[in-house]
Amino acid sequence: MAAQPLLNLGTKIVAVGRNYAAHAKELGNAVPKEPVLFLKPTSSYLQNGGTIEIPPPLESLDHEVELAVVIDQKARDVPEAAAMDCVGGYALALDMTAREIQSSAKSAGLPWTVAKGQDTFTPISAVLPKSMIRDPDNLELWLKVDDEFRQKGSTRDMIFKIPFLISHISSIMTLMEGDVILTGTPQGVGPVKAGQKITAGITGFIDVHFDIQKRRKPSST
Amino acid sequence: MAAQPLLNLGTKIVAVGRNYAAHAKELGNAVPKEPVLFLKPTSSYLQNGGTIEIPPPLESLDHEVELAVVIDQKARDVPEAAAMDCVGGYALALDMTAREIQSSAKSAGLPWTVAKGQDTFTPISAVLPKSMIRDPDNLELWLKVDDEFRQKGSTRDMIFKIPFLISHISSIMTLMEGDVILTGTPQGVGPVKAGQKITAGITGFIDVHFDIQKRRKPSST
Ligand SMILES: [Mg+2]
Ligand SMILES: [Mg+2]
Ligand SMILES: [Mg+2]
Repeated sequence: MAAQPLLNLGTKIVAVGRNYAAHAKELGNAVPKEPVLFLKPTSSYLQNGGTIEIPPPLESLDHEVELAVVIDQKARDVPEAAAMDCVGGYALALDMTAREIQSSAKSAGLPWTVAKGQDTFTPISAVLPKSMIRDPDNLELWLKVDDEFRQKGSTRDMIFKIPFLISHISSIMTLMEGDVILTGTPQGVGPVKAGQKITAGITGFIDVHFDIQKRRKPSST
Repeated sequence: MAAQPLLNLGTKIVAVGRNYAAHAKELGNAVPKEPVLFLKPTSSYLQNGGTIEIPPPLESLDHEVELAVVIDQKARDVPEAAAMDCVGGYALALDMTAREIQSSAKSAGLPWTVAKGQDTFTPISAVLPKSMIRDPDNLELWLKVDDEFRQKGSTRDMIFKIPFLISHISSIMTLMEGDVILTGTPQGVGPVKAGQKITAGITGFIDVHFDIQKRRKPSST
């Protein structure tokens, strides 16, 4: 897949929080006036079929299924009308979240980095070339834990749409070839534990599966 | 300088907040029990001699002079005793901060990304090879705005020392070749405005200079 090596070139993941009104509400958050942005490191990627690791002493992580937009050129101050020219493809990603750590961080006014940025916290599918996805604003995202549907939503319900997000983010920081925008999660987030499995997908296009285990740290540290 | 291309390989900047007790105090923050970590994108680097841009409608940015530690190999779960083997060099960096945006974000429990991650918000010197710096725990960092000394401090006063930071961060996320750790700022942070100049350095090793201007956005956006 020609678009695949893009992820290896990227240097950042810009994630959008609270971009679906129903999800903002389920976590007790206001619908934002402008996108809530945070960074995840590319070291947090996990390829399809991999194992999501829960770092002790945590017993669970929250799943957030999201559409990933993969940027294919350097982009700064891109007008909305030209924003889609910067898209090289799409992927299905999970924004795994240590919710207890995030909650403590939010209360203390501290960054979300440890809650969002650990290794394996960004499971991601192969990149689908842009040409495959005629209407990125009308994709069904779904996620199951074992045999139970937990999330099903449509990108139609995103508060801030893809061209706006690209334009807005590129007005703050230069997007580079291979950078990824995670566009937020629909409602239904919740915990997964060791021994469970996540399957997730974009209906009609792609699906992914991940095992969940507790992370084992080397005994020397 | 053999260590210089390292910065071009890196995919993340892991910044440490409140790592000098006197600085934590000047901003009214408690001294942390574990390092406060946040991410800055590599798109925020600015080379020595460049112009720091203040994004409108802001009138100023805060300067934070910091020792940057440049990682030269993939590092995960590194014990403190082996941590210095992962260091390829050092640099003098500024962690430019839109303090009003950061304060609003802190109050709202939101990430610091927009306050810390914009283009030109991480001015950085050439990389000094590790062999040049015998004792990274005894370096004097200084910063002047125009002719006025604003910050002068010693890395001796860091709460969490470099080997601990590398070990701790690598237990959370894999550090990659070229990644940078910003180790926090000593006291004396404060605003700089358009038309001012920053000079800063590591006494006896290197100094840098940067102009400050308001950012001009293209008229089309
Ligand atoms: Mg999310
Ligand atoms: Mg080495
Ligand atoms: Mg700082």
